Amino acid sequence: MAVSKISGDALADLLSRWPAWDGPLYRLFADRIAMLADTGELPAGLRLPPERELASALSVSRNTAAAAYQLLRDEGLAETRQGAGTSIAPHVTTPAAVHRANGLFAGLLQASRVEVDLTLAAVDCAPQVTAALCDPATVLSEAERRAVIGTTGYFPLGLPELRTALAELLTARHGLPATSGQILVTTGGQQAIDLLMRTFVIPGQPVVVEDPTFPGALDALHRAGARPIGLPVSHGLDPDRLARAVTTHRPALVYLIPAHHNPTGLVMPAASRLRIAELAAAHPGTLFVDDMTLAEHSLRTGPNRSLPPPLAAAEPGLPNLVTVGSLSKLYWGGLRIGWIRAVRPMISRLAAAKAAADLGSNVLGQAVTAAVMASKHADIVRWRTGQLRARRDVMHAALRQQVPDWSWDLPEGGLTLWVQLPGGADGGAFAQAALRRGVSVVPGRLLSTADANRDWIRIAYTRSPGELRAGVPPLAQAWHGISDRWPAGRRSA
Amino acid sequence: MAVSKISGDALADLLSRWPAWDGPLYRLFADRIAMLADTGELPAGLRLPPERELASALSVSRNTAAAAYQLLRDEGLAETRQGAGTSIAPHVTTPAAVHRANGLFAGLLQASRVEVDLTLAAVDCAPQVTAALCDPATVLSEAERRAVIGTTGYFPLGLPELRTALAELLTARHGLPATSGQILVTTGGQQAIDLLMRTFVIPGQPVVVEDPTFPGALDALHRAGARPIGLPVSHGLDPDRLARAVTTHRPALVYLIPAHHNPTGLVMPAASRLRIAELAAAHPGTLFVDDMTLAEHSLRTGPNRSLPPPLAAAEPGLPNLVTVGSLSKLYWGGLRIGWIRAVRPMISRLAAAKAAADLGSNVLGQAVTAAVMASKHADIVRWRTGQLRARRDVMHAALRQQVPDWSWDLPEGGLTLWVQLPGGADGGAFAQAALRRGVSVVPGRLLSTADANRDWIRIAYTRSPGELRAGVPPLAQAWHGISDRWPAGRRSA
Repeated sequence: MAVSKISGDALADLLSRWPAWDGPLYRLFADRIAMLADTGELPAGLRLPPERELASALSVSRNTAAAAYQLLRDEGLAETRQGAGTSIAPHVTTPAAVHRANGLFAGLLQASRVEVDLTLAAVDCAPQVTAALCDPATVLSEAERRAVIGTTGYFPLGLPELRTALAELLTARHGLPATSGQILVTTGGQQAIDLLMRTFVIPGQPVVVEDPTFPGALDALHRAGARPIGLPVSHGLDPDRLARAVTTHRPALVYLIPAHHNPTGLVMPAASRLRIAELAAAHPGTLFVDDMTLAEHSLRTGPNRSLPPPLAAAEPGLPNLVTVGSLSKLYWGGLRIGWIRAVRPMISRLAAAKAAADLGSNVLGQAVTAAVMASKHADIVRWRTGQLRARRDVMHAALRQQVPDWSWDLPEGGLTLWVQLPGGADGGAFAQAALRRGVSVVPGRLLSTADANRDWIRIAYTRSPGELRAGVPPLAQAWHGISDRWPAGRRSA
Repeated sequence: MAVSKISGDALADLLSRWPAWDGPLYRLFADRIAMLADTGELPAGLRLPPERELASALSVSRNTAAAAYQLLRDEGLAETRQGAGTSIAPHVTTPAAVHRANGLFAGLLQASRVEVDLTLAAVDCAPQVTAALCDPATVLSEAERRAVIGTTGYFPLGLPELRTALAELLTARHGLPATSGQILVTTGGQQAIDLLMRTFVIPGQPVVVEDPTFPGALDALHRAGARPIGLPVSHGLDPDRLARAVTTHRPALVYLIPAHHNPTGLVMPAASRLRIAELAAAHPGTLFVDDMTLAEHSLRTGPNRSLPPPLAAAEPGLPNLVTVGSLSKLYWGGLRIGWIRAVRPMISRLAAAKAAADLGSNVLGQAVTAAVMASKHADIVRWRTGQLRARRDVMHAALRQQVPDWSWDLPEGGLTLWVQLPGGADGGAFAQAALRRGVSVVPGRLLSTADANRDWIRIAYTRSPGELRAGVPPLAQAWHGISDRWPAGRRSA
């Protein structure tokens, strides 16, 4: 049997926010390793990285890494053999399928002492939505509320009122014709992606994504057992390159974010969109997924703010061209409302998958949301884009002043800055150093299928201006504390 | 390549409620087949059952079956070749993994003209819950509501207040010690089961269930690619038989409903529970799941109403003994609130799976539910069990009077009657006959892993007494219309 190993980087991803607690680093490290061994994420026999590699990946001293391994040995969690390095000791856990923890979302799962979280691109609840949630009577009459509560409560396809409201939104605001029968309501955009991966990808099949891409899509993809194929998109996706990938790999699914791509904020031009719709028509064996979660997050001002229509607008009846989205980044993540738009037969199949997964989402939340959409959607979009434009500009100005050697393009929309560190600096090591100063950012590697984007980081600008301003000085200090490890190739932003 | 076939029974399951629309039967049949071919549920080349077998499975005349096949041929949906029978014609659909529609939940996914639905064991919303949902201010102050809405809205583990309330419920009311850290909130009990299957079962691994069992568990099990092994439980699960099955098959997971088993209503005795907890301790490689969704649905009166504690009460720290439940059958299904109780490392792994599946459930619904639980839980249980006791008695009396040759045991709890038809009558054929009279029941076969329970049906008694009384005469008429096909072995109830 081959010895399995874990690299320093992969271990750093699993450790996630470990240093954001109190206590000596080697103790925190050992505690987190113990927990990962308990959950089976680090299986018995797994070879840990050499001390030097670990120290580098975590931005800690060699002595700290040595002390951490010594503690693991002292507590029976690891064993070191001459010439074979340090490995996880045999221990009792429940047997399980292999589990890949996503270092980003892992942050949601544990209490941490991060003071400014710039990883999660979550928005606060829009005031129009807050008002409706606090007092549903402002948007639904008592009779309407009682009618919803008087149902069985099981709507695997989604509440009819919300399906209708979403179909109207796509038709009227985005130029994508849709009927309520073509809509499935999901628990956020994440479930939309997960249901598509579970239903249409067989383990081992290739799935094409942009690289970098939304880490939640990578998480769903890995859990479906798909084989990820990343296409570099530093300046936008090249349709020719995508065409070659589809012809070569015959992927089960292609996942794209044409509207304010996460993390770059780039908008795919109309011509590229048409090319991709043609590509979908020519390859009925591949499902093309257009994620338009951020389509209404344009931060441009002036007359030409509207985006080209979604991919499916060119071929609204194509069975293998599907659109997904979410209200989480416009209204509030706590609503947990997302959707899939597809031809009706596919919606039937996805609804059967949704029924097996959870029998449908929370019902009253859907009713309140449908009512808010009907009367306040345009208002909310205006309010949210104004808020985010101001926050993007605050973050942009603060970084420009305090870390002028970083480089990024000012995004036209979306929620994040995609920042390149100079001199080939390691984004993972920097993220660890920043964490120890109480600020979290996402290393570019976690948004990649193949360990690419190592010298990039993603910074969300969705927190309040005060938090953003408070977060930048620790980032700059963390950078100045370790940047001399990569002295080459400094350039100005 | 082997020719694939579908049996008359399997086709009847897929057709589900097809005859509950207007129009001639053969037309409805052909429409439904076309839809199933569109969605890929009936793949091109699939051999349909011979006319005689189809007629029998659907309780229609041979002429109707022949007319339906003729219409399929006329519309290019099927082709008949000499000696090769009738099969689905090649057609364009999106490629996809094989999909097994569950004939029960399929009913939720389509509009139908069923007048009395006795399939879905859904309850109406308890008045205490209706009041809180209509006006959240009655249970949460404005400050409390704003505090919840002021969060990011992402709680893959569940809202802390609800996790605490659920832990207290288990500890105080069920004798199962639990802390909030041992609770994961899910979108209903269905997601609890689905997450466990997805996380702990590798395709091809055996999973042991009672037979009959909850059809939602079978649906999740099939989608996880598990190999189902059913243990007959007409008089309750025999722990010795379970022990032999675990030793022989080494299943990845065992799914049990010890408290008011669905569909029989049986309660597993304390001695059997202890045996099974011991079995779990002796087989750390198998995950034992105790579904206590119906644990508070005791319909007994008098002093000895309390159930033995859940399986995990005997071994609260055992990593491979997990408890799941739901508020859907006590409060309301539309809340979509379920939960998993397990040791903390397992909760960590399940939360990572939940994050990849949907990043967490609707948040404000969790806050309102936690508040209702804190002040009104005991009230709701008293109200619900009183309601259901009356309904069970109405259904019992009406059936006894109108179909005295059926047999069932009066259940001590739960939501359903498990009824045996006399003379080996086919429950599927009867369900089809009942549907055409506007009443739906579940054929026993759909609650089975292996085509067993063919002469049984499940009847939910959760609808209003008026609906139940209206539903029984059509059931009796349907029975009397076809019962002469199974003249043997009549017996009295």
